[in-house]
Amino acid sequence: MAVRYELIKTCRQTGARLGRLHTPHGVIDTPAFMPVGTQATVKAVSPEELKALGAQIILSNTYHLFIRPGHELIREAGGLHRFMNWDRAILTDSGGFQVFSLADRRKIREEGVEFRSHLDGSLLFLSPEKATEVQNALGADIIMCFDECAPYPADYEYVRESTARTSRWAERCLKAHRRPDDQALFGIVQGGMYPDLRRQSAKDLTSLDFPGYAIGGLSVGEPKPVMYELLETTVPLLPDRKPRYLMGVGSPDALIEGSIRGIDMFDCVLPTRIARNGTVMTSRGRLVIRNAAYERDFGPLDPACDCYTCTHYSRAYIRHLIKADEIFGLRLTTIHNLHFLGSLMARIRQAIREDRLADFRDEFFESYGMARHKSGF
Amino acid sequence: MAVRYELIKTCRQTGARLGRLHTPHGVIDTPAFMPVGTQATVKAVSPEELKALGAQIILSNTYHLFIRPGHELIREAGGLHRFMNWDRAILTDSGGFQVFSLADRRKIREEGVEFRSHLDGSLLFLSPEKATEVQNALGADIIMCFDECAPYPADYEYVRESTARTSRWAERCLKAHRRPDDQALFGIVQGGMYPDLRRQSAKDLTSLDFPGYAIGGLSVGEPKPVMYELLETTVPLLPDRKPRYLMGVGSPDALIEGSIRGIDMFDCVLPTRIARNGTVMTSRGRLVIRNAAYERDFGPLDPACDCYTCTHYSRAYIRHLIKADEIFGLRLTTIHNLHFLGSLMARIRQAIREDRLADFRDEFFESYGMARHKSGF
Repeated sequence: MAVRYELIKTCRQTGARLGRLHTPHGVIDTPAFMPVGTQATVKAVSPEELKALGAQIILSNTYHLFIRPGHELIREAGGLHRFMNWDRAILTDSGGFQVFSLADRRKIREEGVEFRSHLDGSLLFLSPEKATEVQNALGADIIMCFDECAPYPADYEYVRESTARTSRWAERCLKAHRRPDDQALFGIVQGGMYPDLRRQSAKDLTSLDFPGYAIGGLSVGEPKPVMYELLETTVPLLPDRKPRYLMGVGSPDALIEGSIRGIDMFDCVLPTRIARNGTVMTSRGRLVIRNAAYERDFGPLDPACDCYTCTHYSRAYIRHLIKADEIFGLRLTTIHNLHFLGSLMARIRQAIREDRLADFRDEFFESYGMARHKSGF
Repeated sequence: MAVRYELIKTCRQTGARLGRLHTPHGVIDTPAFMPVGTQATVKAVSPEELKALGAQIILSNTYHLFIRPGHELIREAGGLHRFMNWDRAILTDSGGFQVFSLADRRKIREEGVEFRSHLDGSLLFLSPEKATEVQNALGADIIMCFDECAPYPADYEYVRESTARTSRWAERCLKAHRRPDDQALFGIVQGGMYPDLRRQSAKDLTSLDFPGYAIGGLSVGEPKPVMYELLETTVPLLPDRKPRYLMGVGSPDALIEGSIRGIDMFDCVLPTRIARNGTVMTSRGRLVIRNAAYERDFGPLDPACDCYTCTHYSRAYIRHLIKADEIFGLRLTTIHNLHFLGSLMARIRQAIREDRLADFRDEFFESYGMARHKSGF
């Protein structure tokens, strides 16, 4: 068994789950946020820094690595862990999302998807079998089924067909998977914004008995309350004994609301991408460091933060670096944002332990300057 | 006394000097190479990484910091050391070189130089007094006289007038200097490629009794043998008890040849700049990591190297990062190149200690694949 989910306890205030995910490359405390290392590197930071930030698992993108440098090269290098000098857990997505969001001129057929590389226009093909083969070569601890992430908005009939195809593709991925003993293949529930399609997808996928389940196709532009309601529809249909991964979600509010609704894993480029634009998350909300207000501000990004950045550098210095296009500035803001989310997840886990995640959510939202989403919790 | 030079011994084979430079922010073993941190950061690396690489002093650029973020802001931050979180020694140049190489539409007068910012075109003015005031605000351990670095080639009459003006400016810098107790102001010998002007400049400068002397205006395009001969002309005219700094030199061969000719300090953007283009220095010469030859090369950049990069990452991985424009690639090549030069300087010091620097030079050049420069040593 490549991964094993251990449920430690359920929050009596919300139903959120405290758990541990055991993998061939270590244990992940859940709920967990996974930093994204698209091209076999989490942009601007080193593996040692990621470890110091508490990251127990990172995500890397099959689509990008398939195109460059190629999965066969990474296989020859001894796999992705060794190639990038990361000895903790890795999850690779299937490439599905990128084929539908990045690649040019795609043609979707039952067999798979033909598309043009966004780098050089070359003609490429990914299918359930190929995406699984690529992920077997990369060697991540958790790999994902090749799926279609339907566009938003999309009409019912399109999403119904797409979701049914994703279910058929999931079955083919399972058959194509060559390393089930050291790589856990997760199924992905789709269904767009339609509750009955979500239910059908969950039914299709769980009948295939995957070692874990992702919820895909959310956080694609829909209002957050819609996402939360669809989680409330979908999560209860997933087996308790398996981990649940909400794809592409990384804003602080959605991490809390997702955890409340029983999600165990999250990933998103948000913290690292906004960091490189000079936007940081703080205990008082977002802060745009380029603003003139911080020119002579010699305090830390967040007075409540104890990360490397906040204990060594001022807002004035970081603003100078970002304005001067200095690489070290990107590194400092990236470290801060990853620390912020890592610390947020630790506080979420602590609140679950203490059966007070709904209270924590309200406290956090007030401090962060956010309206609380009305929900039953 | 802001700095004190301690001569430990002279190489009996070459005349190279082994020494220690004592500063308010620690001791520097000489001959030393100073990494360049133009905008209050050595591009791509952290202060902690610089320390791990053995850097005891870095250089920062007055011209850039004067323009952005401004010396008054850095003074308010508590000085450059505190602003950038670097508690070892710093040397700032005077801005002279950049005014003549980077700025637009400069007008040189006896009073100083009027120029346009290369960033936004705003009208600025630097003079001996202003450059010294800016450097007093930045607070580096070693600061430099405001000088003109004459273009190459330049006719005799131009260089004669320019060099004489640089001498007059040096006297004004000395008078304007407000912090002689904790900042050492170095004079800069100019004189272009004309030995008699170099001699005159050295005479002018040494009569002012600076705590250290730089040799400027070399490595500006002239053949290396010309530079070496001018060093042989100039260095013997400088006082033994003061440190000697050859500005803008950082290629391995010139570091060795400069040391042989009695130079104690060097700086150059070369190792960090070529690193960001994906070129690294190795014990077998330069290596361009983008080359297809390294696509599936899973060995280290330099098998003889024990830096962080070489002990953790392969040529194939670094090539992938550089080709994918990943920040972490720039960091890995920068660390390697700075380690290479730091290690070279340590080997130069060891060779001086053992009275065998000429032998070391020949061994190094053979390994590095370089023709040995014919010289008397």
